[in-house]
Amino acid sequence: MSSLLIKNIGLLVTPEGCEARCGKQQGKVKALENAWVYIENGEIIRVGTGLAPITMGQKLDAGGRLVTPGLVDAHTHLIFGGWRQNELAMKIRNVPYLDILAAGGGILSTVKATHAASEDELADKAGKALDEMLSFGTTTVEAKSGYGLSTAEELKQLRVIRRLSESSRLDIMSTFMGAHALPPEYKDRRDDYVNLICDEMIPAVAEQQLADFCDVFCETGVFTAEEAGRILETGRRYGLIPKIHADEIDPIGGSQLAGALGAISAEHLIVCPDAGIEALARGGTVACLLPATSFYLNSTYAPARKMIDAGVPVAMASDFNPGSCPCLNLQLVMNLGCLKYRMTPEEVLTAVTLNGAAAIACADRLGSLDAGKQADLVIWDAPDLNYLCYRLGSNLTHTVIKKGEIVHAPSH
Amino acid sequence: MSSLLIKNIGLLVTPEGCEARCGKQQGKVKALENAWVYIENGEIIRVGTGLAPITMGQKLDAGGRLVTPGLVDAHTHLIFGGWRQNELAMKIRNVPYLDILAAGGGILSTVKATHAASEDELADKAGKALDEMLSFGTTTVEAKSGYGLSTAEELKQLRVIRRLSESSRLDIMSTFMGAHALPPEYKDRRDDYVNLICDEMIPAVAEQQLADFCDVFCETGVFTAEEAGRILETGRRYGLIPKIHADEIDPIGGSQLAGALGAISAEHLIVCPDAGIEALARGGTVACLLPATSFYLNSTYAPARKMIDAGVPVAMASDFNPGSCPCLNLQLVMNLGCLKYRMTPEEVLTAVTLNGAAAIACADRLGSLDAGKQADLVIWDAPDLNYLCYRLGSNLTHTVIKKGEIVHAPSH
Repeated sequence: MSSLLIKNIGLLVTPEGCEARCGKQQGKVKALENAWVYIENGEIIRVGTGLAPITMGQKLDAGGRLVTPGLVDAHTHLIFGGWRQNELAMKIRNVPYLDILAAGGGILSTVKATHAASEDELADKAGKALDEMLSFGTTTVEAKSGYGLSTAEELKQLRVIRRLSESSRLDIMSTFMGAHALPPEYKDRRDDYVNLICDEMIPAVAEQQLADFCDVFCETGVFTAEEAGRILETGRRYGLIPKIHADEIDPIGGSQLAGALGAISAEHLIVCPDAGIEALARGGTVACLLPATSFYLNSTYAPARKMIDAGVPVAMASDFNPGSCPCLNLQLVMNLGCLKYRMTPEEVLTAVTLNGAAAIACADRLGSLDAGKQADLVIWDAPDLNYLCYRLGSNLTHTVIKKGEIVHAPSH
Repeated sequence: MSSLLIKNIGLLVTPEGCEARCGKQQGKVKALENAWVYIENGEIIRVGTGLAPITMGQKLDAGGRLVTPGLVDAHTHLIFGGWRQNELAMKIRNVPYLDILAAGGGILSTVKATHAASEDELADKAGKALDEMLSFGTTTVEAKSGYGLSTAEELKQLRVIRRLSESSRLDIMSTFMGAHALPPEYKDRRDDYVNLICDEMIPAVAEQQLADFCDVFCETGVFTAEEAGRILETGRRYGLIPKIHADEIDPIGGSQLAGALGAISAEHLIVCPDAGIEALARGGTVACLLPATSFYLNSTYAPARKMIDAGVPVAMASDFNPGSCPCLNLQLVMNLGCLKYRMTPEEVLTAVTLNGAAAIACADRLGSLDAGKQADLVIWDAPDLNYLCYRLGSNLTHTVIKKGEIVHAPSH
């Protein structure tokens, strides 16, 4: 048996509410001063305050610092070849995205680079990103396919995710997203691509047990709400839990569909209409918001406050990808939650821990510091939660504990 | 004699234009592939491409990475007691700044905390911030007083800056800013405070040689353009080069004054009118823009493109301070330059190197990689300048060289 006692915690803050389908108030947290956490075999056994228990195992002094649950990044496009820095100058000059696409850029250039990369290369690159995420306090990640757009290439991406999930110190949840874009060769026969996804890709993904979730980009010029519904229903029949990219640019019914399907999460939601918010609330769907993408694209910000007020559980994630958000730092996402969504630090913490876990079906074992949950914690170079959300641009991670093991410690 | 050869530089990028008073085009850079830099006694002796010279001294392999000049942070309020994270919740709820002030917050709470801190405490805290700046690639910093607001306390802050400038690995330039706020006890006799600055503080600062520059916050409710002019003229008579916080909230004539005085720099300039831009161009004044503050305050962004088009040299700095910008990361400032000012990566690099140096009267010895200049360089975990500006939220610093010495190296 391995055990770890984390003592001398100046302030321990953990969400109590909410997670999907529970209806509790977002941002309800428990804050314990002068606390300790006792861990056995990777599981939290007890959280207490005052005098720490006398134990035989390993001890870690938190030095009076803030401790929270490890961060959960519930939306990333982790597996891709290449980068797209060459598009920056075009973006600065306001070149329309379609012109960038025509110049060989945009998502299709990432598809090409991902095809060209071997599984080893993709795993090596994504593994480095995971290490960096860990250094920022992220202990669990969702990763999507979607730069394959053919059965063989989608399966290749998902195999890389599985391999990383076996080798990485982080927990990784896997999402099949063959419906990330319409491949150009299907431009005039879009039904054929939807059929390919439903009749070939999803069955293969399910048979090889390569994904937990199925996601669709429901957007003007990509997939309609009707197509998204068909794909997600098919996925569900094969055991894949539905997620959906909805209302990022145009509100074409994605959020309403998410609620009607009871999707586990809906993503982006920048232009989510009131009817969509109501549907999400009724469906118990987590709103997985991606503020760094709004920041990067100079778009508006999702109506987070309205969602919280309507009882929709709000999560926040990085959307890490090489096009619209080359950012994997959830601390910056937390800043954006306060500054741009006007969420409180308590709501922000809930969004990147318990509700992030709920968005990827892990809230039963991750996302809060309670007895019985997996021991994923971050010790922060911060005295309190306000400070963690207030400081900008510094990495405030001090120590990261994953499944009861110290996986990141200060270098100095 | 100590020497260092940096070889195997994949791409070396250094500004050629512009710096203040030179009229060269902003963003004109020299980009050398497969380059090397030879350094002796902290000075760049030669920059070349292709086969590196055979030398006896220390060698450093840049591994094919990008190399630029060290970053210059030309505007910080580095020396302060306390932090102000407790104001975050009020900011999120849109509590007006005057109400925060009335609740004991705002700048006066920092003044109080700075008064309460000893010189040792202030130096220790600022020293940690300097170490962190260095880890982000900053090699030169300007630091202001201005949380003292009495002769004794202003001199205390400036003594801390001098001490750091003697002990830190970074170069530090010092600015006297007794005119940072009107102390409450002078509310009904503002002339007395301006007299105190001119008749007592400035002579004392000059006599003790504690500052290079004199700065004034010219803003509604703080100091008028007329008062600013009087303070800066007095400072100049005592050998302090004028700087001015202008047009941050209201355009009350600060930029026009800056140009008319030939101030070395004007800061913020968020609402700078066309007449102000013309005045800056005529005066050869550097526009020192602080985009992270606009970001943090949810205000608009300074008209950087208009300034560049008008021939105003544009620098960018962090504005690191505990109220409006608790951020010391110039890489994030570079992102903001591209994304929010729509400056090109070349213009952005110029803004945080050569033009930053020009804003603090150091362009003759810092800010570009030319023979005869001080050997301040950063090796970046980046293949090119676009990548450095495109990635968001990651610290891309690989190695920092200051005065020819390796002062920051990868920990792994």
